[in-house]
This record gives sequence, structure tokens and C-alpha cells, in this order.
Amino acid sequence: MIIIGEKINGMFKKVALAIKERDSNYIQDLAKQQISLGCDALDVNVGPESVDPVEDMRWLVKTIREITDITLCIDTTNKEVMEEGLKLSGEGCFINSSHADEEKLDFFIPLAKKYNSKLIVLTISKNGIPSDTNSRMELVSNIITKSLEHNYDITNLFIDPVLLPINVAQQQIISILECINQIKYISDPPPKTIVGLSNISQGTKYRSLIDRTFISLAIYTGLDAAILNPFDKELMDTIITTELLLNKQLYCESFIEAYRKK
Amino acid sequence: MIIIGEKINGMFKKVALAIKERDSNYIQDLAKQQISLGCDALDVNVGPESVDPVEDMRWLVKTIREITDITLCIDTTNKEVMEEGLKLSGEGCFINSSHADEEKLDFFIPLAKKYNSKLIVLTISKNGIPSDTNSRMELVSNIITKSLEHNYDITNLFIDPVLLPINVAQQQIISILECINQIKYISDPPPKTIVGLSNISQGTKYRSLIDRTFISLAIYTGLDAAILNPFDKELMDTIITTELLLNKQLYCESFIEAYRKK
Repeated sequence: MIIIGEKINGMFKKVALAIKERDSNYIQDLAKQQISLGCDALDVNVGPESVDPVEDMRWLVKTIREITDITLCIDTTNKEVMEEGLKLSGEGCFINSSHADEEKLDFFIPLAKKYNSKLIVLTISKNGIPSDTNSRMELVSNIITKSLEHNYDITNLFIDPVLLPINVAQQQIISILECINQIKYISDPPPKTIVGLSNISQGTKYRSLIDRTFISLAIYTGLDAAILNPFDKELMDTIITTELLLNKQLYCESFIEAYRKK
Repeated sequence: MIIIGEKINGMFKKVALAIKERDSNYIQDLAKQQISLGCDALDVNVGPESVDPVEDMRWLVKTIREITDITLCIDTTNKEVMEEGLKLSGEGCFINSSHADEEKLDFFIPLAKKYNSKLIVLTISKNGIPSDTNSRMELVSNIITKSLEHNYDITNLFIDPVLLPINVAQQQIISILECINQIKYISDPPPKTIVGLSNISQGTKYRSLIDRTFISLAIYTGLDAAILNPFDKELMDTIITTELLLNKQLYCESFIEAYRKK
């Protein structure tokens, strides 16, 4: 599974401060730590309180690129900020994210093609977030149709079925797992699937327990990628062990240590 | 899910000693503790070193029955010991266990009917343990056919697909999960499924991590019951959280505490 570290995000106070004060050591350390914990990519978000988000994104990406060429996941709803991030990150990044509306897809798919990027699309339309599997899958069909229209490589498409917090939408979790599974069969080749894991436990008391129990089920149903907190050791152990049980990693006595060394 | 506590088993040295010395306090405490940790039933096994297993089983069941009428799971390969346990336990117990061979089923199914017991049948035949899903499901078909022949209530049948240790049979785990899932569709009503959980981590370094990651996937695929170590708090938390994610428990902020109080 592709693990995307969520920590370089201005919604965290220390990160917001580091961005404001141009503290490149703090950001670079955070990048290095997440990589050493097993991340395959890093999310980059200037945060909601950025005064000059284009300039902040430029600084963040440049600062990270000074020390690593890891895949970046440019996380913003602002189109100008997105393009600035993509320009400086190099090819193969993630665009995080588009909604499933036609006009959004008509903007983001060509952008993804221009920068040879992967594209995360949330199953959200103008009508909001679907409440059942069928309506989610309808949006997935629309996304695939649009991708084909634009001749965009489906295997670069990452569908996010939108995890809602368990304390407001407990009954939707089964539907999201079904959706992850069904996406594997919707086209050949199928698009990939991704979740923003921390959403599921937002505002709850047992965050790590909920996150790690969910991710395990999601990996089993076919999840390809997750944006998550790599500092949660128990979560990372659960991911490693799930892949072991599903025969995606080879067993050895010290499989946890072996995986971490990789 | 039906949780069967595994601790009253003479393979554990302290239990073997308690049986030998007729230390009823030790056994009764172990029963009470497992019940307070959330067990729905208790496994009872005199252990491999019992000199008089019939007499030991009699003493064990009587000792437990002095303090609780919880469902017991009589665990022995000795037919005489089994019948002794069933006689004293009362109706609705588990017979643990029969193999899938005709002659074994022809003995155990009538015994289960006689004592109105649930019957655990391992997918093991004279040819050994099957190595793939199809051969496991063939044995499941034989078990169901035999049950119908004897007019035994299929919903009292618990199929155990035989978890092998991950360090010797890693590639069989996916097949076991498939099997648990397929059994749900093999007949209407279907038989139930059960695993002896600790087997999967036998001889490994991260026992609890492997056990709890597996049980979560197994519950998702439809597992009905497990024999396990209820003293493993992280395992129990994972079971509770999996049921929560699958909407089998209602979410509340302190769902772990709420479940434990039940």
C-alpha cells in the first residue's frame, strides 16, 4: 500500500508557525522523519490560515525538495496554489484533490495530464456526499467516463470514497468498504482507491484504535493508498501485519523490524 | 461474535497443577475472570498430561458449574471424556471437536443431537489439512451432507477451517478468510464458522499483533465465533472496534467501556 504522510499541513499549529517563520529545519525534519517511518509520499498543505498560500506552497515545496525527491501530494482547493505546487514538485505527484463534478474534472484531469500527475478524486458532487454504495459507485462511473474522454490513464486515478467520522456516520463505513471493493471490478484496468484515514476518528476518544482497525479492513477489501499519521506506531504495525497476513510481505520472525529497515 | 475463553486448559502449567491438586478456587477464579472480560463461553480441556482424564473432566465441569451456568466448550479428542463433559455441562454446550471424516461425523453428530450441543468440525480428513479453498469447501460440503443425513440443525454446526501458524503456512491465510466468507453462501441457513485464534501466531514474536489483525479480517469476512485469550486487552479492543465499524455495536464516545460493562 502507498502510505502518504499527513504531517506537513498548516492545520497543525507548529507547522503553521514553521511556514510563517520560514523555519526550513522544522519542515525538513518532519519530511525526513515521515520518510524514515515508511512513507512513500508526503502530503503538503499550507493550511487554512495562510495569508499568501501561493508563496507558502512555493516555499514548502522548495524546502522539501532541497532534501528529498520523494513523491509529493499537493493538497489544496485553490487552483493557483495547486499549479504552483505541481510546477515545483516534478512529475508523478498527487493532485489532492478534485470533486466528481464535471466542471471540476474538466479542470483537474487536464492539469494532471499536463504535469503527469496522479489525481485524487473525492466521491462528492454538488449534491453532497452520497450516503450509500450505489450512489458512490455512480459518481465513480462518472469519474471514469470523464477520464476516458480526456484520455487520462485510469491507473493514475485515485478514488477517495470520503471517510466520514464514525461519530456522525457509523452506518456508512460498511458502504465505504464495499465501494473500495467494487472499484476493483468497475473497469479494466481499474482506478486505484485512497482514503484520508484520520477523518474516521475525528472527535473520538480512541483515535488510533479506530484508525488501525479500519485500515486493516480497507486493505483487505483492496485499498491502494492512504493519507495518514506515520507517527502512530501501532497503526503502522497493523498495516505491516495486514500485508503479511495477505501474503504481500514475506514472513520472517522480525517482520516488523525488517519492514522498517526497508 | 461468540467469544470462547481458552484459559481453562491443562496445557497451561498452572491449570494442570490446579487440576492435579483439585484447587477449585484457581479454576473458579479463571472462569470468573474470563466471563468478566467478555467471554460468552469457556473452553474446558484437561490437558495432555492428565492421568485420569474422565475423572479430571468430571471435576473440572462440576467445579465450574458451582459458580456459573455459562456455555461450556468441551475440548477433547477422547470420546469417553467428551461424553462425561457433556453429561455434566447441560444442554447447549460446544463439542470441540470432530474431524470431517465420515466415521467421526457418524459418531459426533448423533452425540451432539443427544446432548442438544453445538458441534465444532475441523476441515481435516484422513488426507490431512487441505491447502486451498476448494478442497476446504469440499470438506465443508461433506460435513453439511452428513448433518442433513442425521437431521442435525445446521445452525448448530460450527466449521473450523483450521488456522495454521503463519510461520509455516503464511500463504494459507487468504484461503482461510475466503473459506469463512464462502461458508456463508453454501446453504440456507448456512453453518457457522469458528477459529482457534492462537494457532495463527504459534511460535512467533508478535503474537497479539498477529492475532488481533487476523481476527479483525475474519470478523469482516463473517466469522461467528473464536476460541481466544480474553486477557489480551488489545485483542478484545480490536474485536469491539471491528464490530463497531461493521455497525454491529452502536457508537458512543466510551464504546470500549460501554461494551465491557455489558
